[in-house]
Amino acid sequence: MLELNFSNMMGEVIGEKGVSERQIEGIKAVVHEIDKRIKAKERPELAFIDLLEQDTAEIKKIASDVREKSENFLILGIGGSALGPRAILEALSPFHNLDKKPKVFVYDNVDPRTLHRILSLADLKKTAVNVITKSGSTAETIASFMILWDKMNSAVSDPTKNFIAITDPEKGSLRKIANEKGFRTLSIPQGVVGRYSVLSPVGLLLAEVIGIDSGEMLKGAGDIHSKCSDAEIWKNPAYLFGTLLYLMEREEKRNINVLIPYADGLKPTAEWFCQLWAESLGKSGLGLTPYPSLGTTDQHSQLQLWMEGPEDKVVVFIKVDDYGVDFEIPRVFKDVEGTSYLGGHTLSGLIKAEQESTELALSKIKRPNMTISIPKIDAYHMGQLFHFFEVATAFTGFLYGVNPFNQPGVEEGKNFTYGMMGKKGYEAKRKEAEKASNAKRVS
Amino acid sequence: MLELNFSNMMGEVIGEKGVSERQIEGIKAVVHEIDKRIKAKERPELAFIDLLEQDTAEIKKIASDVREKSENFLILGIGGSALGPRAILEALSPFHNLDKKPKVFVYDNVDPRTLHRILSLADLKKTAVNVITKSGSTAETIASFMILWDKMNSAVSDPTKNFIAITDPEKGSLRKIANEKGFRTLSIPQGVVGRYSVLSPVGLLLAEVIGIDSGEMLKGAGDIHSKCSDAEIWKNPAYLFGTLLYLMEREEKRNINVLIPYADGLKPTAEWFCQLWAESLGKSGLGLTPYPSLGTTDQHSQLQLWMEGPEDKVVVFIKVDDYGVDFEIPRVFKDVEGTSYLGGHTLSGLIKAEQESTELALSKIKRPNMTISIPKIDAYHMGQLFHFFEVATAFTGFLYGVNPFNQPGVEEGKNFTYGMMGKKGYEAKRKEAEKASNAKRVS
Repeated sequence: MLELNFSNMMGEVIGEKGVSERQIEGIKAVVHEIDKRIKAKERPELAFIDLLEQDTAEIKKIASDVREKSENFLILGIGGSALGPRAILEALSPFHNLDKKPKVFVYDNVDPRTLHRILSLADLKKTAVNVITKSGSTAETIASFMILWDKMNSAVSDPTKNFIAITDPEKGSLRKIANEKGFRTLSIPQGVVGRYSVLSPVGLLLAEVIGIDSGEMLKGAGDIHSKCSDAEIWKNPAYLFGTLLYLMEREEKRNINVLIPYADGLKPTAEWFCQLWAESLGKSGLGLTPYPSLGTTDQHSQLQLWMEGPEDKVVVFIKVDDYGVDFEIPRVFKDVEGTSYLGGHTLSGLIKAEQESTELALSKIKRPNMTISIPKIDAYHMGQLFHFFEVATAFTGFLYGVNPFNQPGVEEGKNFTYGMMGKKGYEAKRKEAEKASNAKRVS
Repeated sequence: MLELNFSNMMGEVIGEKGVSERQIEGIKAVVHEIDKRIKAKERPELAFIDLLEQDTAEIKKIASDVREKSENFLILGIGGSALGPRAILEALSPFHNLDKKPKVFVYDNVDPRTLHRILSLADLKKTAVNVITKSGSTAETIASFMILWDKMNSAVSDPTKNFIAITDPEKGSLRKIANEKGFRTLSIPQGVVGRYSVLSPVGLLLAEVIGIDSGEMLKGAGDIHSKCSDAEIWKNPAYLFGTLLYLMEREEKRNINVLIPYADGLKPTAEWFCQLWAESLGKSGLGLTPYPSLGTTDQHSQLQLWMEGPEDKVVVFIKVDDYGVDFEIPRVFKDVEGTSYLGGHTLSGLIKAEQESTELALSKIKRPNMTISIPKIDAYHMGQLFHFFEVATAFTGFLYGVNPFNQPGVEEGKNFTYGMMGKKGYEAKRKEAEKASNAKRVS
C-alpha cells in the first residue's frame, strides 16, 4: 500500500522551519469541512472518484481488437488526454516500441517534425488512431485529427474502422463527428475533467492495449481511496500531503514543490502530477509550482539548488521498495581507488541509499521533504499513485478556496489563436494581436 | 542566427513590473567588468569557450568505427555527461531507435529496471559502451560501468574494444582503468566541467555516431560567440538574457525561469539548460529555479499557473522559424462547428500562432517573457543554443557573485551514500544515517 512518510516536514526533525502538530490540529476543523464537501460530491467534477466503480468491458473489447489487428496505436490528445497514457506506458512498459506490439505513439503537440516522423514509422493501414478530447474541440487535437482523417481516407477503404474516439458522452465536435461517421467511442463520464481522467477510458484503453489489466489499476485506486477518504487527517495521506504543502507555502513561502521519483519509469508520472497540481491550484494569484524531477539523475542537476539555493522548495520523494529485477555490482577493478567500495552491493541498494542520503542531507540542513513509498511499480500501485494525487489535489484546491477543476487563465491565449487562425467572432483579437507585434527589441 | 527578443521584459510593454532602459544602463559598468573577467579567462573553467576551436579528427575516427561495427551505442553517464548527448539525440534524430543504426541508449541512472530492459534489447557483442565521467569516479557511472565490464567479459573475447572512455586527460579512476586496459579514450579538456561539456567529446562523439557533423555544431557556436562576447550589453544576447533574469529576481522576486521551446525535439535541451542554470547559480542562498516546459503541450498543463498563479515567474520561449517539414490541415468536417476555422492552415502556422498567442496573453497582463528565436533545428543552431546558454550562465553567476562552476551542495548527500555503501573513511556518516532513520511518521 502507498504510504506517506512526513517526519521531515515536522518541527521535531527540522526545527522551527517545520510544521507543528498544533498547526495540523488547528486546521482540523477546516479539513473536516472539506472532507464533508468531497463526500457530498459538492462539485460535479468530483465524479472522478466514481471512476473506481466503472465497468471496463467495452474498454477491454476495443483493446483486444486493437491488439489483434493493429501494429500501431496512435493517441491524439494533449494535456490530461496525453499525460496519463504516457505515464502508464513508461511506468509499466518501458522502451515499449523497441520490442512490443502494437507500437504506441502519443502525438500531444502540433509539431510538424514529430508528425512527419510518426507517419514515416507507422503504416496507417495497420494503425488504430485514438482521438481524445473531453470538450471535443481542443484545437491541437482536432487539427491533427483532421490531418489523420484525410490521410487515413487515402490509405484504407473504410477509415472509420481505424478511429476510436474518447470524449464527452454527448456533447462536442468530436462526439458529433464520431456519431456521424460511426467510430467506436468510449466516454469520459460527465463531470470528469481532462486532468482527472487517467483512470477513465483515457488511461485504461492504452493500458489494456499494452496488456495491462485495467482492473488492477482500479483495484489499487479503490484500496487507497479508503485511506484517502478518512476524515481524520492524521490517518489520511492525501489530506496530510495537501495540508503540509499548503502550510509550507502559507507560513514559510515555499512556493515550489519538487516531485522526485527514484525510478526512470515514473518520470512521466511526475509530469502528469505537475499538470494536475499546476492547473488545479494556480489561480486567483495563488498556487504552487510543481517541479518534475528524477532520482538519482537530478541529484546531478537540481540538488545543488535545493541544498544551497533559496529556501523556496519542498522536496517530495517517491521511493520504490522492490524494483522487481536487480544487478550485483561485481568486484572488479579492485586495485583502483574509488571503485572498490561499490563491489558486492546491488544496484537497487545503491539507488535506495542515494534516495535516503538525499533525504538525510536535506533534513540535516532543515529543508523540508517527505517521501511517498510504493512497494513496487505495477498496475495496482500506479492506480494508487494516480488516485492519491487526484484526491490530494482536489482537497488542496478546497483548502486554498479555489476551484480545482477549471482553467480560466488559458482562455486569453486561445482567443488570440482563434483570432490569428481566422475563427469567426474573433476578428477583434486578430487586430489586437497584429497591433501588439510591432516594435520588437532584438539582440 | 539565434536572436533574443526582449521587448516583453521591458517597462515600455509591461509597465512598472518591467525592466527600464535606465536599469540596464545602470548595470553596464558591472557588465563591462564581468566581460573583462570572462575574456581574461579569470577562472580555468572558462575553458569551455576554447572548445569552439577543438580538433575533432579523433572523435570522427572513433565515431566512424562505431557506426561501422556496432548496432548499439550505450552511454553511461549522469548529469552533464548525459543531458547534452540526450539533447542532441532528440533534437537532431527524433525517434532514432525505431529506424536508425546504431541504436542509442543513455543509461543515466542506477535504476535496475532500466538496465534490465537495455540489456534485453542490446546484444553486447554488437554494443559500443561509452563511459563518461569528468572526475572519473561518479558513483552511478562507475557502478554501471563495473556491471557492463563484467558482462562484456562474458560476452566477447576482447572486451576492451567495446569501451570508449571520455574523462579527464590525466586524472581519476576511469582514466586509470582506461589506460591499464587499453580502451580508446577521448578527453574533456582540463578546466571544462561536466555541465559545460556538451560541445566537448561528451556531446560531439554521440553527434558523429548518429551522423551529425560536429563541425557544424562548433561553427554555430563560434558564430554566436562573436555576438556573446560583445562588451556592449545591448548587442550581447547572452549578457542581456542573464541581466534581465537577474533584475527580475532581485527587483521583482521572480525566482522561477520557465524555458518553453515550441518543438518536441527541444524538450531535452530545456532539461539540459535546467541543470546548467540550477547547478551553476543555486548557491549561497541565491539562485533561480529553471523550469523545463514544452509548447504547445504545456499550455494545457502549466499555462494556467503562469497566467493566474503567483507573480514568481519569467517565461522564456524558444521559437523555431522553419520546421523543415509541414502539413496542411485539410478542409474536412465542414459542417461541424468548431473545426472549420482550422482547415487550410498549416501545422507550423498553428504552432507559431499558439506561441505568439501565449506571448501576447502573458504580456497583456504584464507578466514578463522573452523569446529566443532560431531559424531551424539543425546542428549549426543547436551549437548556437548550447553556447549561448553556457555564456549566459557563466555571466549570470558572476553577476550574482557566485562561482558558476562548482557544486559544493551535493557533497553531503554523496558522503551519506559513501557511508551507507561502506566506503572507507565514511564510517561516521553511516552511523549518523542509521541514527536519523528511526522515528518515522507515516500515514
